[in-house]
Amino acid sequence: MKKVVTFGEIMLRLSTPGYARFIQADQFNATYGGGEANVAISLAQFGIPSEHVTRFPDNDLGKAASGLLRRYGVQTGHILYGGERLGIYFLETGAISRPSKVIYDRANSAFAGLQPGMLNWEEILKDAGWFHWTGITPAISDGAAKSCLDAIQTANKLGIPVSADTNYRKNLWQYGKTAREVMPELVEGCDLIVCSKGDAADMFGIEPRREDGSGFTSVCKQLQKQFPRIKKIVNTKRESFSASHNSLTGVMWNGEEMLKTPVHQITPIVDRIGGGDAFMAGLIYGLFTYKNDQKALDFAVAASALKHSVEGDANLISADEVEPVMQGDSSGRLVR
Amino acid sequence: MKKVVTFGEIMLRLSTPGYARFIQADQFNATYGGGEANVAISLAQFGIPSEHVTRFPDNDLGKAASGLLRRYGVQTGHILYGGERLGIYFLETGAISRPSKVIYDRANSAFAGLQPGMLNWEEILKDAGWFHWTGITPAISDGAAKSCLDAIQTANKLGIPVSADTNYRKNLWQYGKTAREVMPELVEGCDLIVCSKGDAADMFGIEPRREDGSGFTSVCKQLQKQFPRIKKIVNTKRESFSASHNSLTGVMWNGEEMLKTPVHQITPIVDRIGGGDAFMAGLIYGLFTYKNDQKALDFAVAASALKHSVEGDANLISADEVEPVMQGDSSGRLVR
Amino acid sequence: MKKVVTFGEIMLRLSTPGYARFIQADQFNATYGGGEANVAISLAQFGIPSEHVTRFPDNDLGKAASGLLRRYGVQTGHILYGGERLGIYFLETGAISRPSKVIYDRANSAFAGLQPGMLNWEEILKDAGWFHWTGITPAISDGAAKSCLDAIQTANKLGIPVSADTNYRKNLWQYGKTAREVMPELVEGCDLIVCSKGDAADMFGIEPRREDGSGFTSVCKQLQKQFPRIKKIVNTKRESFSASHNSLTGVMWNGEEMLKTPVHQITPIVDRIGGGDAFMAGLIYGLFTYKNDQKALDFAVAASALKHSVEGDANLISADEVEPVMQGDSSGRLVR
Amino acid sequence: MKKVVTFGEIMLRLSTPGYARFIQADQFNATYGGGEANVAISLAQFGIPSEHVTRFPDNDLGKAASGLLRRYGVQTGHILYGGERLGIYFLETGAISRPSKVIYDRANSAFAGLQPGMLNWEEILKDAGWFHWTGITPAISDGAAKSCLDAIQTANKLGIPVSADTNYRKNLWQYGKTAREVMPELVEGCDLIVCSKGDAADMFGIEPRREDGSGFTSVCKQLQKQFPRIKKIVNTKRESFSASHNSLTGVMWNGEEMLKTPVHQITPIVDRIGGGDAFMAGLIYGLFTYKNDQKALDFAVAASALKHSVEGDANLISADEVEPVMQGDSSGRLVR
Amino acid sequence: MKKVVTFGEIMLRLSTPGYARFIQADQFNATYGGGEANVAISLAQFGIPSEHVTRFPDNDLGKAASGLLRRYGVQTGHILYGGERLGIYFLETGAISRPSKVIYDRANSAFAGLQPGMLNWEEILKDAGWFHWTGITPAISDGAAKSCLDAIQTANKLGIPVSADTNYRKNLWQYGKTAREVMPELVEGCDLIVCSKGDAADMFGIEPRREDGSGFTSVCKQLQKQFPRIKKIVNTKRESFSASHNSLTGVMWNGEEMLKTPVHQITPIVDRIGGGDAFMAGLIYGLFTYKNDQKALDFAVAASALKHSVEGDANLISADEVEPVMQGDSSGRLVR
Amino acid sequence: MKKVVTFGEIMLRLSTPGYARFIQADQFNATYGGGEANVAISLAQFGIPSEHVTRFPDNDLGKAASGLLRRYGVQTGHILYGGERLGIYFLETGAISRPSKVIYDRANSAFAGLQPGMLNWEEILKDAGWFHWTGITPAISDGAAKSCLDAIQTANKLGIPVSADTNYRKNLWQYGKTAREVMPELVEGCDLIVCSKGDAADMFGIEPRREDGSGFTSVCKQLQKQFPRIKKIVNTKRESFSASHNSLTGVMWNGEEMLKTPVHQITPIVDRIGGGDAFMAGLIYGLFTYKNDQKALDFAVAASALKHSVEGDANLISADEVEPVMQGDSSGRLVR
Repeated sequence: MKKVVTFGEIMLRLSTPGYARFIQADQFNATYGGGEANVAISLAQFGIPSEHVTRFPDNDLGKAASGLLRRYGVQTGHILYGGERLGIYFLETGAISRPSKVIYDRANSAFAGLQPGMLNWEEILKDAGWFHWTGITPAISDGAAKSCLDAIQTANKLGIPVSADTNYRKNLWQYGKTAREVMPELVEGCDLIVCSKGDAADMFGIEPRREDGSGFTSVCKQLQKQFPRIKKIVNTKRESFSASHNSLTGVMWNGEEMLKTPVHQITPIVDRIGGGDAFMAGLIYGLFTYKNDQKALDFAVAASALKHSVEGDANLISADEVEPVMQGDSSGRLVR
Repeated sequence: MKKVVTFGEIMLRLSTPGYARFIQADQFNATYGGGEANVAISLAQFGIPSEHVTRFPDNDLGKAASGLLRRYGVQTGHILYGGERLGIYFLETGAISRPSKVIYDRANSAFAGLQPGMLNWEEILKDAGWFHWTGITPAISDGAAKSCLDAIQTANKLGIPVSADTNYRKNLWQYGKTAREVMPELVEGCDLIVCSKGDAADMFGIEPRREDGSGFTSVCKQLQKQFPRIKKIVNTKRESFSASHNSLTGVMWNGEEMLKTPVHQITPIVDRIGGGDAFMAGLIYGLFTYKNDQKALDFAVAASALKHSVEGDANLISADEVEPVMQGDSSGRLVR
Repeated sequence: MKKVVTFGEIMLRLSTPGYARFIQADQFNATYGGGEANVAISLAQFGIPSEHVTRFPDNDLGKAASGLLRRYGVQTGHILYGGERLGIYFLETGAISRPSKVIYDRANSAFAGLQPGMLNWEEILKDAGWFHWTGITPAISDGAAKSCLDAIQTANKLGIPVSADTNYRKNLWQYGKTAREVMPELVEGCDLIVCSKGDAADMFGIEPRREDGSGFTSVCKQLQKQFPRIKKIVNTKRESFSASHNSLTGVMWNGEEMLKTPVHQITPIVDRIGGGDAFMAGLIYGLFTYKNDQKALDFAVAASALKHSVEGDANLISADEVEPVMQGDSSGRLVR
Repeated sequence: MKKVVTFGEIMLRLSTPGYARFIQADQFNATYGGGEANVAISLAQFGIPSEHVTRFPDNDLGKAASGLLRRYGVQTGHILYGGERLGIYFLETGAISRPSKVIYDRANSAFAGLQPGMLNWEEILKDAGWFHWTGITPAISDGAAKSCLDAIQTANKLGIPVSADTNYRKNLWQYGKTAREVMPELVEGCDLIVCSKGDAADMFGIEPRREDGSGFTSVCKQLQKQFPRIKKIVNTKRESFSASHNSLTGVMWNGEEMLKTPVHQITPIVDRIGGGDAFMAGLIYGLFTYKNDQKALDFAVAASALKHSVEGDANLISADEVEPVMQGDSSGRLVR
Repeated sequence: MKKVVTFGEIMLRLSTPGYARFIQADQFNATYGGGEANVAISLAQFGIPSEHVTRFPDNDLGKAASGLLRRYGVQTGHILYGGERLGIYFLETGAISRPSKVIYDRANSAFAGLQPGMLNWEEILKDAGWFHWTGITPAISDGAAKSCLDAIQTANKLGIPVSADTNYRKNLWQYGKTAREVMPELVEGCDLIVCSKGDAADMFGIEPRREDGSGFTSVCKQLQKQFPRIKKIVNTKRESFSASHNSLTGVMWNGEEMLKTPVHQITPIVDRIGGGDAFMAGLIYGLFTYKNDQKALDFAVAASALKHSVEGDANLISADEVEPVMQGDSSGRLVR
Repeated sequence: MKKVVTFGEIMLRLSTPGYARFIQADQFNATYGGGEANVAISLAQFGIPSEHVTRFPDNDLGKAASGLLRRYGVQTGHILYGGERLGIYFLETGAISRPSKVIYDRANSAFAGLQPGMLNWEEILKDAGWFHWTGITPAISDGAAKSCLDAIQTANKLGIPVSADTNYRKNLWQYGKTAREVMPELVEGCDLIVCSKGDAADMFGIEPRREDGSGFTSVCKQLQKQFPRIKKIVNTKRESFSASHNSLTGVMWNGEEMLKTPVHQITPIVDRIGGGDAFMAGLIYGLFTYKNDQKALDFAVAASALKHSVEGDANLISADEVEPVMQGDSSGRLVR
C-alpha cells in the first residue's frame, strides 16, 4: 500500500503514575499523542507506511514528539517547526467507578498557529495512498481548519481516498466558528467517515427519521445523501460498566447494509485513551488487506479492544496480534 | 458548616510497590494515615473545614505527617509535638485470593504518650461544629483514652455533636484495661456511631434478641436504650469475593427504621485501606448537606466505594465525584 | 522432611514494567528464575529444606542469581561456576486479550555447557529426601540430559523418590536428539510425574485408547504400564478466558482413581509465570504433609492459584497462606 | 515576627529525572515553584509565619500547587482561583560543562490574568509584618504589575517594610511596557532590594560613576538617591566553574558601608534553581533575628549555598541547619 | 580461613531517594544493615566465610533481613526469631555543606530483648575462627551486653581471636548502665580493637599523657597496659571537607610502632554509611591474607574508601577490586 | 553535507540504576548502543544526515533498537533483520575509585552472523558523503570483517571519504584471525583514523622510532607511510584521576604538524561510555563545518567532554551546545 498521510495536532501527554490522582502526583509519565498521529503509529505497526503532518514548536519538546513518531515508524519529513508552544494534556487514570480524567492545556499551540499556505499539500500528498483527518483539527483554529480543507481538496484532486473521524468535542471550537459551519465542507471530500448519531446531530443537524429505518441506519442514509462521496459510515458502540470494564462493538453502513461485529469484553482496562484511533487504523488496514467490509470491521474492533491493554495513546499492536482476537480468540494465552 | 474536629493517631504507612511481598521489597511507598485523620482529609475534599488533633514526635517524620494533613486541606494548629516515635504500619497489597497484609509497629508512639491535660479541648473545640473519634484511640493507651473522654465531654458541654466509629481491634487494648471497661463511658457522649454487630457484642456485651426484631435492628434498639444520646447507628456490610473484588452496602438505624443502600460492586480494588473512614466522612457530609438520612447513607457508601480506587489511606474524592455514583452511575466514563 | 534437591537451568528474567510492550521499554525489572529452581524456592517458603543444583557463569550475574536462591532460603552449595553466559528471557506482561509474551535468549548458556561428571551426584544427593527435575533440562543439551540421567539413576540407587514435570517445549530440543529418544529413559526413574495428554503423546507416543477409559485416565494407565515405577500422574487444567482471567483445576491419577479439585477463578492475574512450578512444589509439600492424595492435590492447586498474585517466577507464599484457599476461602480479607 | 506576605506567580515545574535530556525523557518529576513562593516556603522552614498570594486556575493543578504551599507551612487563605491555565516550566539538569536548561511555557496563565481590584490588599496585609515581591511579577502582565503596585502602596500605607528582588528577565516583559517604564514606581515603595549592577542599568538606567566610588558602591549610592526609601541594597556574586561547581558571595550596601561575606564553594550541585530566593529568605530571617547586617548577610549566603543541595525550587532547610554553615563549618558531617 | 562470627543488631534502613529530604519523601529505599552484619557481608565478598548472629522479630521484616544476609553470602543458621519489632533507621543523604541525617527508631527491638542464655555460644562458635562485636551491642540493653560478654568469654575459652570496634554512641546507653561500667570487662577479652582517642577517653577514661609520646600512641600504650590481651589498636582519621568530599587515613599501633597509610581522597561520596565497618572487614581480611600489618592496614583503608561508592550499608566489593586501590591506583578506569 | 553512513553492531545496554552494583540490581535501565551507531546519532544531533547499517534479530528487541536510531534522527532503511540474537552488554557505573564495569554477552549475535553479499554497498552508499567504521566490527566475525572490507572498497570506488576508529579490543577477535592479519587491508582504504600508540603497535606492529621524532609523531609518520591514503591521524589522551574525574585532550597529525587542544576537566562524570564515539562525530562535523583542522579538533574534544554529562551511549548534544565549550566556556551557566 502507498503511505497513509495523517494530519493533526500532537500534544505532550502527562499522566500520573498508576492510579495516582492529580493532587497526589509528584511525577508524570510523558509521552506524545494525538488522534491522527495515533492512527499513523498504529498503521506503521501493521506494516503500512505512514506519515504524520503537524506543526511543533521549535524546541526540545517538539523534537521529542517528532522523535516518538519516528521511533514507532512514522515518517516526519513534512512537519513544520515554529509557533508558541506544544499543547499539553494531563491524564489521571480511573478505576472501579472513578472515571479517568483529562485536563487540557492546549490553547495557543504551534498547531493552532498554522496558516493556510504553510503546508504544501501537493508536495506532501504526491506519493500518498490515503489521507486521514479528524474533527479535532478544524476545531482548533481557523488556520487549522483551512489547512485541513486544503489537504482534503488536494487529496480529492489527486484521487486519494480521504477518511475522517468526526469526533465532536464541544469544548473545542472556541475561535468563533461552529462545527455546523465548518464541518460540512470538509466532510464533503470524504470517502469514509467514523460518525456517531450524536455527531451527526451536532455537526450536520441530522436526526434519525422513521422513514429511513431505525436509528443509525437512518442517519447513515441521510449522511450519504448530503455527502454523496461518502461510501462507508462507521461507528463503535462502547458500553461502560465501570472505569475498568467496558465492552465494544462496531457497526458499518456500506451503502447497502448495516454490518455488525461481535461484542468484545474489555477488562481490566490498562489505558483507555486512543481506542477510537486504534479502531480507525484497524479499519484502514482491514479495508486494504481484506477487501471485505465485514472482515475490515472485525479487525478494527479487535484492534481497538487490544488498544485498551497498551499504555500510551498509540496502539502498539501488530496485525499478527490482532488476527486471533478478530477471529474470536481472546484467551490471551502466553506466547513463548 | 463549622469545622469538624477529629482526634486520633497518625502512622507512617509504608507500602510495598505494586503487588510486591514484604520479603521482595527494596522500596516502600510512604504516606501517613490514621482512621480519624482520614475522615478529616476526606471532609476537606468535600469542602467541609476540618482540623485534626494528634501528637507527633518532634522530628522530620512528625513534620512530614503534619505537612500531609495541610497539603490536603486539614488544619493542624493544635497538634502537639513530643514523645518517642511515630507509629508505623507496613502494608503489602493483595490480589486474587491473596489478602492484603498489615504489620503494625505502633507501640510507644508519641500519641500513646498523650496525657490528660496536654490538650486544651475547650480551646480546640471552641469553633467546632462536630467532633469525631474512633475506638482505636482509647485502645492505644490510658492517656489517649482519657484525652478522648475529655474531648467528648467538652463537646457535649459545648453542644457539639459527637460521632464515633467503634472499630474494635482486639490486638490493641494492651495497656491493662478492656474495651468493655472503657468504651461505654465514651460512647455515652455520642450522637451517632458506626458499630457492627460484632463490635456491639465485644464492646458492650449486646447480643441480638428475638424480641427486638431481627439481628442488627435488635442490637441498635439495645444500644439506644443503653446510650440514649445516640440518634443514629450505622454500619456497612462488605462481602469479599476476593482480595480484588468486594461489594459494599450500608445500613442505618435512625431510631425509627432501618435504611439500606444498593450494593456497590468494587473491582478491581486499588487500595482497600480507609474504606470505613471514607464512609464516615461521607456520612457526616451527607447528613449535613442533604438533611436526609437515606441520601446521607447513599452518599456515604458511594464515597466508600470510590475510596477503593484511590491510593493511600485517605479518600481524595470530591463531592462532585461522589454524586453520580451515589445516584447509580458507576459507569466511570472518561471526564474531559 | 529431608531436603528436596532440584536440578535445572536458571535464567535472568527481564520484564518490562507494568504493561509496557518491549518496543516501549526503557527499563526492565530483573529477577532470576527457572522451573526447577522455582520449585525449590516455593518449598523453602513452605518450610521444607531445599537445594538447587545448576551451573552459572563465573560472573556477577551468576553471583546475583545464586544470591537470589539463598535470599529465599534455598541452599546453593553445589552450584558450579563456569562456561559462557547466563541464559536470559525477556517478558512482557499481557492484559485483556493481549497475551504475555516471552523472548528467549538462552542458547550457549553455562548450563547448556554442563558435561557428565562435572556434578558428583552421590555427594549431592547423600542427604536428600527427594529429587525433582523437568523436561526442560534434557531439552537444553546432550550434556544436560546426561547429567540429569545420572542424577535420576543415583537417586534411584539411593532410594530417593524422584519427581518430574515433563513440560514439553518443542522449540527447545535443538541439539540433535528428540524428546521421544531421550525422555523415556529419564522418566523410567520417576515416582511421580506431572504430564499432560499432549506431553504423553509428544514425548512417549501415548494416545488415549477407548479400552482404558476416557481421555486422561487412559493415558495414565498406559504411562504406568510403560513406566512401572510411576505411582502418581498429575496434571492441571487451565482455562484462559483472557490474559487477565484464567481458571485452574488439578487432577491426579494415583493408580486407582482419578482425583479432582474444585475450580479456582484467577483474576486479575498479576504474574502468570511459574504457575506450574508452584503447583509442583505444592504437590510435594502436600504429599509429605497430608499423606493424603486429595489434600495434596487441593493444596497444590491452591498454591498455584496464589502464585498468580505474586510478582516474579517463584511462589513466595507460605503454607499458612495456602491453607485457607485450599479449604475454599478465597475471600482475600485483609490480614492485620 | 508577624507574617511575611509574598506575591507572585507559581508554575508547575517539570524536571527530567537525573541528568536526562528533554529528548530522552519518558518521565518528569513534578513540583511547583516561583521566586516569591520559594521565599515564603523557606521562611516557613525558618519558623517565620508566611503567606503567599497568587492566582491559580480552578483545577486540580491549582489545587495541587496550593497544597504544596500548605505542606511546607505557607498560608494560602487569599489565593484566587480562576483564569486559563497554570504556567509551566520544564527543567533539564546539567552537569560538567553542560548547563541546566529551562523551557518556559507560562503565557496566558491564571496569574497573568490578574486584574487590579481582584485582590483586597488592605485585608491581606492587615496582619502582615513584611511584604516581598520580585521583578518577575510586573513583567508578566499589566494587571499583575498594577496589582503589585497596589500591594506595595498598601504596605507603605500600613507601615509594613517592603523588599524586592529586581530580577530582570528580558524575555518576559512582552505585554507592551518596559521594565524601565514600570519598575521605578514599584521600587519607590521598597525598603530593601536585591539588585545587580546589570539590573540597575537595565531597569533604572544607572551606571557606575567614578565619582561615587568603584562599581557596585556607586550604583548603590545612586539607587538610594533615586529611591530614598531604600535602606539596604544587596547582591550575590556567583562564579560558575562548571554546571556542577559554583561559588557564591554576598554583598550588602547598608547606606554606609559595603559588607561582604566569605566565598562558599558549592559542589557538586544538586539543584541550582531557587538559589536567589533562598538568599532572599535568609536575608529577611537574618535581619529579623540578628538585628545585625553582617550576620544577616552571612546567614543569607549560607542559606543560598545550602539550597543547591536540595531538590526542587524551595529551600527546605531549617535555621538550625544554616547556622553552622554561616559560621564557617561546611564539613557536612553525618548528623545522628 | 575458618568462619568469622559477628554479633549485633540489624535494622531496617529506610533512605530517601537521591537527595530528597525527609519532609519531601514519598518513597524510601529499603535495605537492612548494622555495624557487625556489615562486617560479615563484606568478609563474604572477600571470600571469607562468615556468619551473623542476631535476633529478629518473627515476621516478614525479620525474614527479609535474614534473606539479605544470605543473599550476600552470610550464614544465618543461629539467628533467633522473637520479640517485639525490628529496629529502624531513617536516612537522608546530604550533599555539599548539608550533612546526611539519621533518625533512629530502634527502641524495644527484638535484639534489645535478648536475654543471656538465649544464645548457645559454645555451639555457635565451635567452628569459628574469629569473633567480632562492636560497642553498639552492649549499649542497647543489659541483655545484649550480657550476651556479648558471654560470647567473648566463650571465644576466649575456645582460643578464638576477638575483635571489637568500640564505637561509642552517647545517645544509646539508655538502660541504666554506662559505657564506663560495661565496656572494660568486654574489651578485656579482645585481641584487636578499633578505638579512637575520643572513645578511649569516654569509655575507659584514658587521656594522652606526655610521658607516653604524642597523642594516639600514648593512648594505645595505656590501653595495652589496661587490657593486656590486646595486640593491635587501630583507628581511621576522616577529614570532612564537605558532605560530598572526605579523606581517609588509617593508623595501627601493633605494640611496637605506629603504622600509617596514605590519604585517600573520597569524592563525590555516594553512601557514607558503613565506612567504618568496611574498614574493619578489610582489616580482618588483610591480617589473615597478608600476615603483614602495614598491608592489612592499607587494604582496610582502601576497602573503606571504596565503600563510599556503594549504595547501602555493606561494602559489596571484592578483594580483587580493593587491591589496585590499596596499591595506589585510584584511577577508576573502566573495566571491560 | 551528504549523509554519513556508519556500519557496526548495536547492543542492548542494560545498566544498573544509579550506582547500584550488579549483585544489588533489581532493575536495569535499557537503551541500545554501539560505537558506530553512536557516531551516527551524534551527527544527527549536529544536523548532519546519517544512516546506520547493521543487522538485528527479527524480534521486538531488534525493532526497539531500530526505533531508537530513528528517534534520534538516524536513517534505518538498510538494516537487515535475521539471525540469532541481539548482543547485550551490562553496565555498572563506578564512582570515586571504583571503576565502571562492563559484562559483555555479545557472542552469536545477528550482526556476527553477517555474510558477505548480504549488504548491497553500492546501493547503500550511493547517496553517501562519508563512511565510518571501527575496529570492533572486523573483530566480531569473519563475515563482519568481510562486509566491512566490501563497504570500504565500495566507498573508495565511489570516492567517498572513509574514517575509522581502530579501537583494539583484545578480548574480541575470537574467530580465528588476528587484528594484525585483518586490519591493514581495511585501514588501507581510510582517509582519517583515530588510533592510539597502543593500537598502532598491536594492530600494525608500529612502534615509535627515535628518528621520526617523539612518540606519537613517529607513529603517525609510519602509519602514513604504510597507509598512504590516510591524511589525518587523531587521538585523545584521557587522564583518569578517579572514576568520577577524568581529563581529556585531543591531538591530530595532519601530515604536517601535530595539533593539540586544551585540556578539559570532566567532573563529576555522569556516563563515560561513548566518549570516543562523541569525539569521532565531533571530528567529522568539525572538519566538514570549519574546514580547519585545529577547530575541528577543538570541537571534537569539546563534544567528547560534553558526552560525559549525557546518560546513555550516544552524545545527545547539539552543535550550538558544543560551541561555547569549544571556545573555552565550560561555565555551564543556566540556559533559560
